[in-house]
Amino acid sequence: MTEERWQRLTYWPLVVASLAFIVAYSWQVIANLQGPDYAIMRAIMAVTWLMFAIDYLVRLGLAAKKGVWFRSHLFDLAVVVLPVLKPLRLVRAITEIQKMSKGDQLRTQAAVLAGGTVAILIWICSLAVLDVERPAPGANILNFGDAIWWAFVTVTTVGYGDLYPITAWGRVVAVVLMSVGIGVVGVVTATTASWFVERAATVSGNDDQETATRGQVRALSRQVEALVKALPQDAEKTLPHHREVEPPQTPS
Amino acid sequence: MTEERWQRLTYWPLVVASLAFIVAYSWQVIANLQGPDYAIMRAIMAVTWLMFAIDYLVRLGLAAKKGVWFRSHLFDLAVVVLPVLKPLRLVRAITEIQKMSKGDQLRTQAAVLAGGTVAILIWICSLAVLDVERPAPGANILNFGDAIWWAFVTVTTVGYGDLYPITAWGRVVAVVLMSVGIGVVGVVTATTASWFVERAATVSGNDDQETATRGQVRALSRQVEALVKALPQDAEKTLPHHREVEPPQTPS
Amino acid sequence: MTEERWQRLTYWPLVVASLAFIVAYSWQVIANLQGPDYAIMRAIMAVTWLMFAIDYLVRLGLAAKKGVWFRSHLFDLAVVVLPVLKPLRLVRAITEIQKMSKGDQLRTQAAVLAGGTVAILIWICSLAVLDVERPAPGANILNFGDAIWWAFVTVTTVGYGDLYPITAWGRVVAVVLMSVGIGVVGVVTATTASWFVERAATVSGNDDQETATRGQVRALSRQVEALVKALPQDAEKTLPHHREVEPPQTPS
Amino acid sequence: MTEERWQRLTYWPLVVASLAFIVAYSWQVIANLQGPDYAIMRAIMAVTWLMFAIDYLVRLGLAAKKGVWFRSHLFDLAVVVLPVLKPLRLVRAITEIQKMSKGDQLRTQAAVLAGGTVAILIWICSLAVLDVERPAPGANILNFGDAIWWAFVTVTTVGYGDLYPITAWGRVVAVVLMSVGIGVVGVVTATTASWFVERAATVSGNDDQETATRGQVRALSRQVEALVKALPQDAEKTLPHHREVEPPQTPS
Repeated sequence: MTEERWQRLTYWPLVVASLAFIVAYSWQVIANLQGPDYAIMRAIMAVTWLMFAIDYLVRLGLAAKKGVWFRSHLFDLAVVVLPVLKPLRLVRAITEIQKMSKGDQLRTQAAVLAGGTVAILIWICSLAVLDVERPAPGANILNFGDAIWWAFVTVTTVGYGDLYPITAWGRVVAVVLMSVGIGVVGVVTATTASWFVERAATVSGNDDQETATRGQVRALSRQVEALVKALPQDAEKTLPHHREVEPPQTPS
Repeated sequence: MTEERWQRLTYWPLVVASLAFIVAYSWQVIANLQGPDYAIMRAIMAVTWLMFAIDYLVRLGLAAKKGVWFRSHLFDLAVVVLPVLKPLRLVRAITEIQKMSKGDQLRTQAAVLAGGTVAILIWICSLAVLDVERPAPGANILNFGDAIWWAFVTVTTVGYGDLYPITAWGRVVAVVLMSVGIGVVGVVTATTASWFVERAATVSGNDDQETATRGQVRALSRQVEALVKALPQDAEKTLPHHREVEPPQTPS
Repeated sequence: MTEERWQRLTYWPLVVASLAFIVAYSWQVIANLQGPDYAIMRAIMAVTWLMFAIDYLVRLGLAAKKGVWFRSHLFDLAVVVLPVLKPLRLVRAITEIQKMSKGDQLRTQAAVLAGGTVAILIWICSLAVLDVERPAPGANILNFGDAIWWAFVTVTTVGYGDLYPITAWGRVVAVVLMSVGIGVVGVVTATTASWFVERAATVSGNDDQETATRGQVRALSRQVEALVKALPQDAEKTLPHHREVEPPQTPS
Repeated sequence: MTEERWQRLTYWPLVVASLAFIVAYSWQVIANLQGPDYAIMRAIMAVTWLMFAIDYLVRLGLAAKKGVWFRSHLFDLAVVVLPVLKPLRLVRAITEIQKMSKGDQLRTQAAVLAGGTVAILIWICSLAVLDVERPAPGANILNFGDAIWWAFVTVTTVGYGDLYPITAWGRVVAVVLMSVGIGVVGVVTATTASWFVERAATVSGNDDQETATRGQVRALSRQVEALVKALPQDAEKTLPHHREVEPPQTPS
């Protein structure tokens, strides 16, 4: 079986599993489930994790060059840990269909990925912090509204300090969220900067001022070649040097 | 009626409505109006919203391609929600009159839009937070001076935590302000970076080192053409290849 | 009298005045001077302000085009308000002496200006906040060590909230410091980004891959011209088209 | 002895000393050592500092141009103060072995250096803050877990304010950490922006649209030269202008 065929077969089951994961975790934490209900939700999450882990291992097994596959599928490894990130894979496919310049494609992908990752992480980290902080004595994040508010205050690096985690796991979640916050600021800025540099470089209406292209030089070279052919007959004979000169290809 | 004519007719009424909106909301919140005075101010705001909503729908109706118009007028949708943003539309027109390089135009527009949006949002968010927090028990943002101070501390992502919203709506306002804060840092940085890249690329005083332009290659091509015409009469006849060679146009 | 001569005459008096200003203000605030000592320090500061204001007005008067001079000397207006910024003017002169690429010059200027402005503003804002907060009841910034610590926490946008201004003027000082903090992050990032883009573009060791320069195209054009001159005598006569073709100048 | 030989001889002893430094300091602070144990750890640290100082002075002595060496080895001066930074020197060597474009090399180096510096500084600053804060009355950073958490909250500029240094030295450590935080945000953004600009500039699949290269113009110039040689014999004689025209070298 090829990797492509495997991906077609597993596509919908994995998307459903990804949604089941987020619903189960949200329900468990927000409703503060106990006893058998808690066990059911945790079981759904465990099955989802297992599915994504198996999918990852199978695809790694099917890959011809395992080292190369591993390095170019780091995002898929993140998806195994956090199945909710799965839908973000769609962004790439969607932008490649659209008629856009290469730069706009990259920027749209970056904006959607950054925005999507932040939205998903705010939701998941709110659940996770509430999950670990609620039972801790002296904690101050005690309901989902507060947890979401804390996540926004953290990811934007505002950090009022009205709410903050006090358990070790709660702090690990916070560090992940802060790091993402810094990364997103970077991506937003970089995207905007790249767009500015590109737009500012386009001097509208005066094509003469634009940078000379390779195509132009090649056309000029063909003109000179035609000129050589147009020379008087006896000149043509004395052209031993011409053959050894290559046309101006771009050396790469 | 064309969209252009509609815009000329509605221009001044909408600017006046935009100012009426901000004055009415500021007055209502800062003076903490109650009873009939409160109702009057809210009525003025409602009329303004209605005017901007009608303007938006009429222009959408007049547009030939509604989908394209919708996507290229997202800012106008934001103006319907927050009529105070209307005057920022003027920036584009003003910078296009000025004699500036394309890059400087873009940067001036970005700087004025970012600065204007931040100034307007700090004002509006201060009013909104004070409006929703003041009646809440246990709130700590209780007068307009504190609200403005809180807005600055939030938008710069400093977040001392001496003041912070405690109601759900107050927190929504805060999230909007934080997101704008991050965006503005990005735009400021990107603008500066673009200016640096452009300035650093201009090697002053040595034109020979600059990048070759399309205009230069075209002039060179005309020189070669003249050379072909200058060839001895009998050579001219043997030029069957010349016609099929196009001059070095920029292929686009 | 020309502006240049005026600047040579006033150079050292103004630098001395600039230092007197910072020493007088530091002494007054840190030693918490009262009575006649306070009056002396304030008098020194007033004289300094007067000197810088007169210098500014004289130079504005000497300028031929007052509008142009005003727009290109906005930094000098800032120096009138805060004479301590005067020494930063030296940076430009120093970097222009050094043998550096244009890009490195710009980046060094940006780094020194950003760093110098931040250092001076942290010092001045610490003094100012301490000056206005100390007498206020309920204030928490009560000694110079705390004020400096507060300034660093604010300018980096960390904002712990252990110390914060509570008076209106203290908050105005804080807003200035925060805005500078955001601006400096932008300049640091932009400088680094510009350096990266420039370095990454330099493909070491393969000159053939670099972008074609205007100088190259001009040399090529001279070669073609020489070729025209080298044509058989009778061809030379049939060159009516050649004269109307200009050499490939860069149209600008 | 040459500098190269000295570096080969001292390489492993210095790496071991660098590790001994971090282990000794971590042990001393985390286990809160007192009496003789404290003295032993401090002695190990003192020896390490001495080794790095001697290494620096010997290499400065071996250098031919001391001024140039000093300016191009500022990182080595930082390593004398903080021997733990030594391993970061390896990054440069590693990336230069890899087959990467110049831009990717720079970006990998920047990412690893920024990441490594932040990781090491978070660890060292946590130890340092705990070391100076623990004995201070009224301090709130009292165990290593809290110190690490405080370091993350500070370096990301979130600054909740649940924990903060109160001693002068603790605040100096904090200022170093905050400044690094700002610098890292800048480097992350700049790296991303540079990558965007480079990727967006690569128009895939249409080589004709790329910028003309110097190699292309040189090839074209050789074509014209061949043409001159191919001219009828009598024309060759009338070529006095040709010799004084240089081929289109890139003037640099």
